[in-house]
Amino acid sequence: MDSNDKQQWQRPLIDDRLTPYIEVDAARLERNLQQMQLKANAAGVALRPHIKTHKSVWIAQRQLESGARGVTVSKPSEGISFIAGGVRDLLLAYPVIRPQSVAELLRLAALHQAKITLIADTLQGVAAIAEASQRQPACELAVAIKVDVGLHRIGVNPETDDAVQIADALRANGLRFAGLVSHAGHAYGAGHAAAIAEIARQEAALMQQLQKKLQAAGFPDVPLSVGSTPTALAAEIAPSVTEIRPGNYALLDLTACRLGLSRPDQLAMSVITRVVAVNDHYVIIDAGSKMLSSDKGPHGTNASGFGVAADEAGQTYEVTKLSEEHGFLLYQHHHPAVGSLLRLFPNHSCAVMAQSDSFVLRHADGQSEEHVVDARGKFI
Amino acid sequence: MDSNDKQQWQRPLIDDRLTPYIEVDAARLERNLQQMQLKANAAGVALRPHIKTHKSVWIAQRQLESGARGVTVSKPSEGISFIAGGVRDLLLAYPVIRPQSVAELLRLAALHQAKITLIADTLQGVAAIAEASQRQPACELAVAIKVDVGLHRIGVNPETDDAVQIADALRANGLRFAGLVSHAGHAYGAGHAAAIAEIARQEAALMQQLQKKLQAAGFPDVPLSVGSTPTALAAEIAPSVTEIRPGNYALLDLTACRLGLSRPDQLAMSVITRVVAVNDHYVIIDAGSKMLSSDKGPHGTNASGFGVAADEAGQTYEVTKLSEEHGFLLYQHHHPAVGSLLRLFPNHSCAVMAQSDSFVLRHADGQSEEHVVDARGKFI
Repeated sequence: MDSNDKQQWQRPLIDDRLTPYIEVDAARLERNLQQMQLKANAAGVALRPHIKTHKSVWIAQRQLESGARGVTVSKPSEGISFIAGGVRDLLLAYPVIRPQSVAELLRLAALHQAKITLIADTLQGVAAIAEASQRQPACELAVAIKVDVGLHRIGVNPETDDAVQIADALRANGLRFAGLVSHAGHAYGAGHAAAIAEIARQEAALMQQLQKKLQAAGFPDVPLSVGSTPTALAAEIAPSVTEIRPGNYALLDLTACRLGLSRPDQLAMSVITRVVAVNDHYVIIDAGSKMLSSDKGPHGTNASGFGVAADEAGQTYEVTKLSEEHGFLLYQHHHPAVGSLLRLFPNHSCAVMAQSDSFVLRHADGQSEEHVVDARGKFI
Repeated sequence: MDSNDKQQWQRPLIDDRLTPYIEVDAARLERNLQQMQLKANAAGVALRPHIKTHKSVWIAQRQLESGARGVTVSKPSEGISFIAGGVRDLLLAYPVIRPQSVAELLRLAALHQAKITLIADTLQGVAAIAEASQRQPACELAVAIKVDVGLHRIGVNPETDDAVQIADALRANGLRFAGLVSHAGHAYGAGHAAAIAEIARQEAALMQQLQKKLQAAGFPDVPLSVGSTPTALAAEIAPSVTEIRPGNYALLDLTACRLGLSRPDQLAMSVITRVVAVNDHYVIIDAGSKMLSSDKGPHGTNASGFGVAADEAGQTYEVTKLSEEHGFLLYQHHHPAVGSLLRLFPNHSCAVMAQSDSFVLRHADGQSEEHVVDARGKFI
């Protein structure tokens, strides 16, 4: 990422709204969606994008129209938003440990004939899902086993027999086994594309070993679903994989640029902000942490600042500090005037989208329309 | 702040809702509101709380019923929410640089006979306010001059004659001059109560010098309004001050504890979260950065982690890492079981409230009700 190459950051700034707001570039979004779909198609795998990045039914529908099999959601209430928005095939990539946490999701899924895949990584989880499923037998339900491939967050240790025990428990409870899912989120910390590709290879190897163990234990059909944007962009899709679940690829952000996975001119999301003050120390903009989040990047990628602001000519300024409603750019002799617009590219687009009720979709002709961030605030 | 003193962190955890959610302790909130009101009353100054912390009309109404003169808001759209909620005296503590940014606020204020105080720190700001005011002459409007007392964000340099020029411009435009306002946000970086009190003294001295300069220039009535929770808690209110505008004092957070301004048992806001996984490395909870924010504290206070989680017995665990929907507590041999509740105290309560649509108000008898975070997402 070279912030001196002005052309990469150059883009028209249209002063037709009050600031600050999220702008999504329609053409770049479309290109990002198509490229990932083409990659999945070429490898013969299903694409099930994670909606955590955009939380928008409209963008999810574009992904489905482009060929995605379904969506991945983080929380049951996100799933409820997307069923309400018309999506009919959802993977809930979050451990279910109590039946009541998915009761409403399964009720709505049954009502709308949506297919739900849940994940389990403990016998307690299987018991909770079995109970929820008995209360809502009309729902088309499958359960995948989550595998910890190195992030140490959720998932069975692939070196143990836990996955076999869980698959046995699923069978004993009459629950359909949907294979193995993993998330190599630690790839964000790997620093560059070659190291990320190595993590993708390790992930595929671990998943394939566990697949073989399950096949030996009497489970012949073990689909493998892997998901993270860094591994999806940096590596070839391993032959054993049947599904990929990237999320961030739709919008991208400075983290993807820093990892060498994106150019600045591929970033589909930015925040349009206005200079509200200039003093001897800083240029102050009208977007702070409540708009931009204080996120320095996922999984310890830790940027030095809070984003890069670019003027219409492509001149860039790092956001060095945030307060709640103000951003601080270090003062430079040539600085943007009070009242002028800047386009701010954030470290982590998922964190920024999650704070706004809506975003502005900007078309190549300058026209724009507002879309809702449907699943914003869905933490339960 | 001693996290080994379990009693300070001990509080019942009532398992009556899906997690995660924000819980506000009704008794602690009330005590925090009363203490600040008593301090203002004793000093004979007005209290105009900043609603950025809670963004809740219900809490603002409690502050007004307790004796607050009005409220302080950050953005025009926040002000619109609070006028809609019945508040009739608002200070917009944000620079107006274009008339259109406050058009709707002034229209609603005129409609509901609400009193609005705006701030200016440049002649451009005065011109914008004058234009907005001419378009909406029925609004009861006053303009205060914002003074930079050391944060270097917004405000005139008090060493210059800028304030006099601005006061002259207000008079020339027929705008009512409402005095001087300041925010010593850099007090958060001072580290401890004695240093914060020193910043409060410097702030009062700077404001009083500028007051005298304005009086000498023909502006006899120059009320002084200062505002920040650290200075309001750490220092006596200076005799020259006429109004204080703290915000965070209503809820408090770990930052206030670290600065020695609050005990853990005064913290009115916490997040109720559930353990969803335990592995050899971490205990994983169901609240991540989208719920808790990635904020390490205002103005560079920079905590080591993302909050302290306490079980019902008062045993505490630091949140060492966050992903979007998961929190990571370092594994300890004695750890909370999967499914158990923890109460998480965040670094920065303002950042957490700003991410949720609602909060649960928990009464001493265990009963609870939900309230709306009315001004959430109001960035414009």
